[in-house]
Amino acid sequence: MFNKVVIFGVGLIGGSFALALKQAGRVGTVVGMGRSQPVLARALELGIIDAIGESVADAMKGADLVLIAAPVAQTEKILSSLLPYLEAGTVVTDAGSTKSDVVAAARHALGSKVAQFVPGHPIAGRESNGPDAAIPDLYRGKKAVLTPLAENSPADVERVAGAWTACGAIIHRLTAPEHDKVFAAVSHLPHLLAFALVDDIANKEHAGLLFQYAASGFRDFTRIAGSSPEMWRDISMANQGALLSELDAYLAQLNGLRAMLAARDAGGIEAVYANAQRARQKWIATIETAEAPPPDSAE
Amino acid sequence: MFNKVVIFGVGLIGGSFALALKQAGRVGTVVGMGRSQPVLARALELGIIDAIGESVADAMKGADLVLIAAPVAQTEKILSSLLPYLEAGTVVTDAGSTKSDVVAAARHALGSKVAQFVPGHPIAGRESNGPDAAIPDLYRGKKAVLTPLAENSPADVERVAGAWTACGAIIHRLTAPEHDKVFAAVSHLPHLLAFALVDDIANKEHAGLLFQYAASGFRDFTRIAGSSPEMWRDISMANQGALLSELDAYLAQLNGLRAMLAARDAGGIEAVYANAQRARQKWIATIETAEAPPPDSAE
Repeated sequence: MFNKVVIFGVGLIGGSFALALKQAGRVGTVVGMGRSQPVLARALELGIIDAIGESVADAMKGADLVLIAAPVAQTEKILSSLLPYLEAGTVVTDAGSTKSDVVAAARHALGSKVAQFVPGHPIAGRESNGPDAAIPDLYRGKKAVLTPLAENSPADVERVAGAWTACGAIIHRLTAPEHDKVFAAVSHLPHLLAFALVDDIANKEHAGLLFQYAASGFRDFTRIAGSSPEMWRDISMANQGALLSELDAYLAQLNGLRAMLAARDAGGIEAVYANAQRARQKWIATIETAEAPPPDSAE
Repeated sequence: MFNKVVIFGVGLIGGSFALALKQAGRVGTVVGMGRSQPVLARALELGIIDAIGESVADAMKGADLVLIAAPVAQTEKILSSLLPYLEAGTVVTDAGSTKSDVVAAARHALGSKVAQFVPGHPIAGRESNGPDAAIPDLYRGKKAVLTPLAENSPADVERVAGAWTACGAIIHRLTAPEHDKVFAAVSHLPHLLAFALVDDIANKEHAGLLFQYAASGFRDFTRIAGSSPEMWRDISMANQGALLSELDAYLAQLNGLRAMLAARDAGGIEAVYANAQRARQKWIATIETAEAPPPDSAE
């Protein structure tokens, strides 16, 4: 049970965390903080938060748990702002999509109090943003990755893990560099590729004609290009090294396919497509097995 | 009304065409032809077709309409096989995703009888294949693009258009080169990119770890990589010129983004992402307006 939870950023991610904790009956009061008064007012109106913090000092007073759910580039500024009011009993976590940069920011901002910061990343999202997009079930059955610091006490890590578990998430642990390498490949690069394709098409002279014939395959392929440009700019910058490395591997792959296509190497092209189809079908089957209710489930 | 429709390839596309015509009460008998006896038997069992053609001669006898719904590389062979039995009253069409190569194949195979071939492409699909994936509503509200030949009689074009309209589709007309340029950008390139990404990841040493953390964004981005490798190999080869041109434009775009990322040009990256998000939101709004029921609709 958390008597007081403070959330910096009450949009989709922070708002869904609040709603999930409330639905689970695991929180007394949720206090919202953020850059935009209208967003905070909307979150209050929707019952996501119980109060808007009058100041950082006011918000942090007696807080059990603080979640930072803002674009990752703001992490250091937020941590610096709360440091003067960080009580010994408060644990701070975040929901950022990158972890090495967040850890560096936390060390820089919090100094010797970094032990109270447990880095995290819930693997859930939708392409819509803001408090109106928040839902209590966003994290149900999804992974929440923690990348604890050597300085963290096991009890603090457990408190953060317990909050995500209460939201219905399944806890995974990785090191920050492992985390960033994995998500550069399966999340950050696909976002960059989808944004790049839509921008490429939108800039063509006959863009109107092209969009007219784009269908469901294009819609799904580019769904992630509906995501927040600011958030994904920050992620791209924060995970620059790993993202460049994945992008280079992908560019090499595309150049290989280009050569096959130019040489009319139908067998080579088919081998790539078939390997991809097989790998994806295997992956989907694994997900479906994992998500299926157990045989003795009442549902 | 079509007394006898012959379908070469009774999978998702051909099977859904048959089911839609039947549901609309617009067809007497549907005869199936294809390479695989088990597939034809399954289509018969599912009520997609009423009979399996005993031979091309038998199938073509008295046919009003013939649909070729096979991978595009087979078009010429199928047309050559039916030419000796092509009656004056039969109109032939296809559902291929590329049109310039299909037109060339039709001219080569049919010679002076090419006037009886009206090229077409229904813009609908799912990532599952085969007769079990066929549904009568696949084409409802979707576009069917015709790329008529100068030789086609207006009456034959109307018959083909009427069949697709009966399936619920909306008829569009393009020239074959226009069609191929448009679909290279909005369909063929995204398929290649999705196959390329999944293959790239599947070939990495830590592929298991990567797939473990791939989530819904990755699933949607790569949905089209679940498509038939044979079909997409054929499309890639058939539309090689336009696809290479789109791939080169995209590679230039990615190299530009790579340079911005390497230079930590956050503003440049955000501009691309924001333009993509805006363009996609505008496109989605257009689709949703088009798909919304009219204000006076009973539903």
